[in-house]
Formats: sequence, C-alpha cells, structure tokens
Amino acid sequence: MRTTTARAHPNIALVKYWGKADEDLILPAAGSLSLTLDQFPTTTTVAPAPSAELDVLELDGRPADAGQTARISDFLDHVRTLAGRDERVIVRSRNSVPTGAGLASSASGFAALATAAAAAFDLDLSPRDLSRLARLGSGSACRSIAEGVAVWHAGDDASSFAEPVDAPDMRMIIVTVDRARKAVSSREAMRATAATSPFYSGWVSSTEDYLRQMLVACRAGDFTRIGEITESHALRMHGLIQSTVPPIRFLNPTSHAIFDAVAEAREQGIEAYSTADAGPNVAVIVRPSDAGALAGRLTAFGDVRVVGPGPGAHLCTEEGAAVPAAAVDAAAPVAVPASEPASEGGRA
Amino acid sequence: MRTTTARAHPNIALVKYWGKADEDLILPAAGSLSLTLDQFPTTTTVAPAPSAELDVLELDGRPADAGQTARISDFLDHVRTLAGRDERVIVRSRNSVPTGAGLASSASGFAALATAAAAAFDLDLSPRDLSRLARLGSGSACRSIAEGVAVWHAGDDASSFAEPVDAPDMRMIIVTVDRARKAVSSREAMRATAATSPFYSGWVSSTEDYLRQMLVACRAGDFTRIGEITESHALRMHGLIQSTVPPIRFLNPTSHAIFDAVAEAREQGIEAYSTADAGPNVAVIVRPSDAGALAGRLTAFGDVRVVGPGPGAHLCTEEGAAVPAAAVDAAAPVAVPASEPASEGGRA
Repeated sequence: MRTTTARAHPNIALVKYWGKADEDLILPAAGSLSLTLDQFPTTTTVAPAPSAELDVLELDGRPADAGQTARISDFLDHVRTLAGRDERVIVRSRNSVPTGAGLASSASGFAALATAAAAAFDLDLSPRDLSRLARLGSGSACRSIAEGVAVWHAGDDASSFAEPVDAPDMRMIIVTVDRARKAVSSREAMRATAATSPFYSGWVSSTEDYLRQMLVACRAGDFTRIGEITESHALRMHGLIQSTVPPIRFLNPTSHAIFDAVAEAREQGIEAYSTADAGPNVAVIVRPSDAGALAGRLTAFGDVRVVGPGPGAHLCTEEGAAVPAAAVDAAAPVAVPASEPASEGGRA
Repeated sequence: MRTTTARAHPNIALVKYWGKADEDLILPAAGSLSLTLDQFPTTTTVAPAPSAELDVLELDGRPADAGQTARISDFLDHVRTLAGRDERVIVRSRNSVPTGAGLASSASGFAALATAAAAAFDLDLSPRDLSRLARLGSGSACRSIAEGVAVWHAGDDASSFAEPVDAPDMRMIIVTVDRARKAVSSREAMRATAATSPFYSGWVSSTEDYLRQMLVACRAGDFTRIGEITESHALRMHGLIQSTVPPIRFLNPTSHAIFDAVAEAREQGIEAYSTADAGPNVAVIVRPSDAGALAGRLTAFGDVRVVGPGPGAHLCTEEGAAVPAAAVDAAAPVAVPASEPASEGGRA
C-alpha cells in the first residue's frame, strides 16, 4: 500500500440521471450524459492506517460524522475486496464546491476517492473499471472519472460505466443562488420519485430516447440540438420531481428567473440553454464566444462562474495534499504538512 | 325565441383537468373537481337576430374578431341543433376576469353563454344537460354550471357533466401576478402535452386516483387532505406541462415565490394550499378564519382577492345587461339601454 492523492471535478448532467434500477449496485434506470467541469475540484488523499480498527474520514479539515464515515467505509470495502486486502485507511478530502447545494460534490468526491483508493491499494484498473468502482460510491461519480462530455451507460454491473464522448467545445455558466444544504438529499428524493411518481416509467423510457438523440447531436457537433435537449430534459426532471408525493421542488424563484433570462437572451441571439441538478443553482451552456457576455448578464442572479470541459479524475501531487507516511498510524485527524508525492497516472 | 341574460363565475380546479379523450366532444381524459367562485362573473346576453345572416359577438363592449365569433357560432350551432331552430343571434358578453391570464374566463364565458342561449332558444334543460352543453364550448365551463365545489365526470357525451359535491366551507385567495394574455393557450398547451409528454399516460391514470381521494376528503370535510391533494395535483400538472416538447412553463418566479410563502405560512400554523391554472396567477385555499391574515401577507406578490364558493350559472335580470327587443334586428353592436327582464330559473 501507499499514500495517494487524486483529484476529480464535478460534472453537470445534460441528460439527467434520476432513478436507480438497482439500489445496491447503483445501476441507473436510464443512461445519462454530462460535462465534467474544470473547476470546483475535490482533492482526496488516502493513506494506509494498518494499526487502525476503523477507517477515518476528514472532510475539509474536520472529522466527518459517523454517517459520512460509514458511507466511505462501505465504499472502501469494495476497494479492499477487489484488492484482496483488509487495511483501514485515513481519507482526507477537500471540496471546493458548496456541499449539498445541487453541484454534486458527491460525484467529484467519490471519483477522487475511487481513484486515490484504487492506487493506494495497488489496483491497476482501466478507466472503465475505475468508473464502475466510482459508481458504487455515488452513481454520478462514474461520470467524473471521464474528461469533458461523458456518457454513462445503463446496464448491469459490468456494462454500466461512463466514457468520454466527442462533443463541440462549450462553456457552462454556473449561477450559484443558494449555498445552503438541501432539505432533501438527491438520494432520498430519487427514491421518493420512483416510489410515488406516476410519471416515473415515462421518465425512464423517454430518457433513453433523449440520450440517443443527444449522442447523435454530440457526434454531429450540433450545439443547438445539444442545448434544446439539455434544457428540455432538465425541466422534465424537475417536473418529474415535483410530481412526487409529497411534492419536492428544488428550483426556487431565482432559479426560474434565470431560466427566463436565458430564454430571453436566446431570443436576442445569444444561444444558451439552462439546466439544474437537484438544487436551486442553475448551469447554462453557451458557445465559448458568448460566455463572457451572458455571464455578465447573469450576475444579477447570484455568484457566476464560467467553466469549461475539465479533466477526468487523476492522481496528482500537490503541496499539502498528501498525507506523510509518518502520520498514518494515528487514527485521528492530524495537521497536514508538505507531502510525499503521489505518482501520476496510476490509472493506466 | 326571447332575449335572455345569464351570469356565470369562473371556477378553479382543485383536481386539475388537463387533456382530452375526445377533441370534438370535449370529453376529458380524466375527471376533475373545482370551486366555482363568487367573484369575477361573466354576464352574457343572447338576443334573437332573425334577419341576420351571421351570429354577432360583442365582447366587453367591442366587436369580437372573426376567430372568437366563429368559436361562439360553432357553439351556438349545438344549441340550434338541440332546439331544432336556425335563427342567428347577437351575443353580448362582459367579463370581469382578466382574459387569458389563467383565471379561466372561457369557463365562465361558455357557462353563461350556454345558460343564456338555451333559454333564448326555449330549451328546457336539466342542470346536467346544461353542463353537458357548456362542456361543448369549453371543457371547464361545464363546472361553472354548478355551484361551489363541483366534480366533472370523465365518460362519454351522455355521462360527462359536472355536479355539486358537499365540501367544507373554504376561502380562496387569488393572487393576480400578471394580467397579460398567455403566450400559449390552454387548448394548444393541452394538445402539445398529450402529443409529446412521456408523462401523459401516468398523469391521466393518477388523476382519477386523486379524484377518488379528493371526493372522500370532501365528503369527510377534511380540509387538510383537500389542501394536500390540491397543491400536490397542481404541482404535478405544472410538472407535466413542463415535460412537453418544447417545454411550456406557465408559472413565473413570482408564482413560485407564492407557493413558497404559502408553505412557510403553513409551517407557522396557517393552513393553506396553493394551486395554479394554465397561467402565472396563484389561488390559495384556506379556512375562512385564516383568510384575512393570509391575504394580508400575500399582497406582497400581486393583487389579492379573497373569494368564496359562488353560485352556479343562472339567468338573471340586471340593469343594462340585456338587449332590448327593438335592437335585435341590427346585426351590429348597439348601445345597451335599460333592459327587458330575463326570467330567473330558466334551468329548471
């Protein structure tokens, strides 16, 4: 075993993932497609703790609670099973995305953790298998393994992974209207939808249709069609979620005002399309040449960041990101000094 | 034939009507339930015009356009067929509800017209048959024939009518946030939903379920359950509409802010529930004792009117509402002087 650090970025789905075919294996009810971003990374270090009885998780410099630690530990069990080993580890993770506000920190989190943990346990996984592994932590994490635009295939445990798709260059304007933690988690809301919404079966079958159309549009480099599908599918997902019993609404009045402003910009010749995940923040895709002008307009609604297609999850070296071997026996959070380098390219 | 004047009030659905099983007979895909209001009436006078070649329609004191006149004339053909007569008529209609902004002026309009025209052509229709007749003009008009809370049954031409339902007393707070005419009419949007939404079949079957639950709640006088179904079904309808291709959104940011404010009031002990028809205005049901306090809060969002359960469509006499017999040969709008009385109770 070795100490490793990996970094992964959030992804925003353009064809949404909402609903599982298998809760344990986290197999989606339908395929999806996303853009991995070049900002808001999660950086995660996994260090062996051979004498510890339990895994230890530190999030953003603070000890994690029991629930969070249990979820990480369950995920690490998959890694240990694959590796045929049983060592506990210390996991230190830093997010730069507001937790729980609809920007999918769980995607970058589990993508970084899967990448770091696989390397720490000396697993030599293909990108496909690393994506499958990340999926077991959080479904959408499998997409953050891939760079840029990625398709996540529905299927069984072996065939459900994400891989990159050729697509035209684009920018995404993220408008953060609320950094509060959501009242309902994606996981709970997704479960409620499948259990109570009369729209759910129509959602699943139509999402596969949309995904096929989206893949055609990506291959053709047809930004307009990509945008139309993106906005339409996002509104459809929020319509679906709103149909649960009791209803769940993730978009707030400001979110709706942003959808309106983007539609208005479109009428004025700035081609842009809105989407939103399970929270009030809105992400707008736009051609690179229009990104600056539109971002300026959208500052009226919240914090604005222009992002582009980002790298897939990767091992990295960074000052202060890794945990020195000397610290790994202490099964409690420690100060993080300058680091031992973690090798690059452990995915190969 | 005689000159008659009738008045009808809009209704707001608590279990929504969205989608037709038959476009010609205006048979709904599922049943619905509404509250006929005691404000915003439409008053319509039908006067014989035996020498005219075409029906004439005057709306709010102005000649109607060709499209509006054709729709009214088509409806009057049903009345003429029932009566076995062929006289043309002059129709003068006055709305007190903002046209086309989601407060269903077509419901009060066709309920008043059906009532006045049936009497003008000396038809002696039961409330049930009058409701069926009004349905042929605009589906939801059949509900405005009935007083207070009314259920509109799905079915065939003979069995699809509205009738009153016992329900607890309640008030409705109408918050008018936009008086503009809608970009998409209900009729077009309904058609687009049935043609393009993958949620449509789930919507139809679940609406019948909700209607059954609502009838149980009404019979039990269970305001809480009536409210929960109302808000949930409204959000579900807007979710459905949002899932059309291309998406249609009738609610605007202010509408969503009102839903939020009502949810917040509920947490603070004012039991109230929101709904919205095919437009941005929001209607909030509330117990009579809480209506004043909540209405005060909601003035922040738009014009507020507190309404209660209103009467069914009825023949009436009103100064200035009817057309004098002397004017009926002139197939053009005329000044409306003090009137000949129209008999009350012509529905019996």
